[in-house]
Amino acid sequence: MNIRVLRYAVSIVLAIFVAALSFGPATGADADKELLQRACGIFKALPKAMESDQNPVTPAKVKLGKMLFYESRISIDGTVSCAKCHPMSLYAADGLRKSIGNNCKVNPRNAPTLLNAADQISEHWIGNRTSVEDQAKQSVIGPPAFGMVKYEDVEKRLKEYAEYVSMFKEAFPADKQSVTVDNFAKAIGAFERTLVTPAAFDEYLRGDGKAIDQDQKTGLKTFMDMGCAGCHSGAFVGGQMYQKFGIVEPYWKYTKSGQIDEGRFAVSKVEADKYVFKVPILRNVEKTPPYFHDGSVDKLEDAVIIMGKVQLGRDITGQQTSAIVAFLKSLTGKIPDDALIIPVLPSIE
Amino acid sequence: MNIRVLRYAVSIVLAIFVAALSFGPATGADADKELLQRACGIFKALPKAMESDQNPVTPAKVKLGKMLFYESRISIDGTVSCAKCHPMSLYAADGLRKSIGNNCKVNPRNAPTLLNAADQISEHWIGNRTSVEDQAKQSVIGPPAFGMVKYEDVEKRLKEYAEYVSMFKEAFPADKQSVTVDNFAKAIGAFERTLVTPAAFDEYLRGDGKAIDQDQKTGLKTFMDMGCAGCHSGAFVGGQMYQKFGIVEPYWKYTKSGQIDEGRFAVSKVEADKYVFKVPILRNVEKTPPYFHDGSVDKLEDAVIIMGKVQLGRDITGQQTSAIVAFLKSLTGKIPDDALIIPVLPSIE
Repeated sequence: MNIRVLRYAVSIVLAIFVAALSFGPATGADADKELLQRACGIFKALPKAMESDQNPVTPAKVKLGKMLFYESRISIDGTVSCAKCHPMSLYAADGLRKSIGNNCKVNPRNAPTLLNAADQISEHWIGNRTSVEDQAKQSVIGPPAFGMVKYEDVEKRLKEYAEYVSMFKEAFPADKQSVTVDNFAKAIGAFERTLVTPAAFDEYLRGDGKAIDQDQKTGLKTFMDMGCAGCHSGAFVGGQMYQKFGIVEPYWKYTKSGQIDEGRFAVSKVEADKYVFKVPILRNVEKTPPYFHDGSVDKLEDAVIIMGKVQLGRDITGQQTSAIVAFLKSLTGKIPDDALIIPVLPSIE
Repeated sequence: MNIRVLRYAVSIVLAIFVAALSFGPATGADADKELLQRACGIFKALPKAMESDQNPVTPAKVKLGKMLFYESRISIDGTVSCAKCHPMSLYAADGLRKSIGNNCKVNPRNAPTLLNAADQISEHWIGNRTSVEDQAKQSVIGPPAFGMVKYEDVEKRLKEYAEYVSMFKEAFPADKQSVTVDNFAKAIGAFERTLVTPAAFDEYLRGDGKAIDQDQKTGLKTFMDMGCAGCHSGAFVGGQMYQKFGIVEPYWKYTKSGQIDEGRFAVSKVEADKYVFKVPILRNVEKTPPYFHDGSVDKLEDAVIIMGKVQLGRDITGQQTSAIVAFLKSLTGKIPDDALIIPVLPSIE
């Protein structure tokens, strides 16, 4: 048993132990209070924005970043923008098993939502993007994404639009050369750092016991009791660690994964990273099917049951599944109004 | 010389004759007044909405239609929605020579803007869609568009979303079966009928002589004097007739059209319809490159020069071209605020 699995086992045992402690005689208001206290020890309400010292969020960057988010004319075939795989209408995911990039190229994995995504340990399923800025930057030359060959070609295209040139200057006043792919990435990153979607669960964590209903409370308790919260914790209910997908049994036994994905092993080439993926955030999970790194599962109920089997070695009952799903729905939040307003893009003068 | 060409020749001669009449000694304020009067005889300010007796615009239809406009999950591969080829960020066109539909299929022609599009004699370049409703309906089973095989399959997918079912009921209260492709088309059509973009030119036509500048006035005069307004007239500056593309010389001599498109002949099989296309509207033309049915020309200046050559048999000078382009920019309008707000789509419950 390697250290990672050992650490995982210990965290599950601890979670169950803590859960057992709370199986006391508490009822009604006491039980409610206990549940909230316990939840506050594991989860956190969402921040207002996902700030970064490396890329402070400014209005000028956000405005430019939102425009660039919709800019398809900087992709090799003119069809790919960030919004293609992350449309706001579908909670910044695309509803596909795997996203389709330029010239119909299939991306290796399912497009995760960009909402609440900027404060994770890394981006992408296997953590091969260090930040949302890094993700934006690498996307433009990603062969199955925008498909551009050189960063300079992206910069050249951006410079064709006088409006962009002046907006870059305004957003990055200290830079002599402001129209760069790094600043492109920073602007998009700044926009993404505003994409926080407060939900009923945040109201609950802030002390409003009526913000979630009894089913959702039961689900929350089940989610913690079962050990789900061992990995899916914090403000984003995930996104803070890597974990093997298939601790107890191989994931492909239960998902409909046709091809086996070795996960983080592709990045690190370390044997222990085989089948290891970043634990996804569960904010808005109700709204972003299909599920898992390969989008192989359509229904949230099925995803919950499979997680029980392959991660916890447990058969989650129908009642427990319903309760957990009810809880997960309390994570569905409100997309910021500004992010729902389409920017009109410049034309060449 | 067939009757169509004869009619065209007469209209050009008449236009030039009328133009000659106005070459009087009028100067300054008088000339301005004359120009406005003449323009008002040829063009019209935009209506508030593009109403239809067959499909009255109601708020419930528009709300549903806007959601369906973004709905990609009813296409065969889950990637195509109306917004794919008509994104509002690019003035409801896509910036491509020819649009890309499901599974990377190339559409036969360039995607025209949907703004101000609903009051034309027909939709599509060759008039093979009778209305915006017909266009929406046929798109879902169009092989290079949404690519669905049967209308029933679209209806089945729509019915999976409880929110859509109740919205269809609300939008079409008299229908026993409200979730139908016909109503899908009516809802989208109703949304499109609101897509009117008032511009500086409308202010001018309503009597504000300062709404357009002197260059634009010169351009407007040139546009009428040259005969462009013989076809590009009315509220939409086009969209009201079919015309041969290449009256004087074949269009492919001057455009970069690799393949010859026989135009409306494909629909009618009438010899006289060879190379005949619907005269496109010029509203927002500045913002919707590339130009012509095959998107073969990138620059508006070049498109103007080519039109002079192949339609009018004239070499338009650089000065005249600049003036016409300046006038055409006065047709760039404001997209309605509501059309720029992205609807969040339902998920399966």
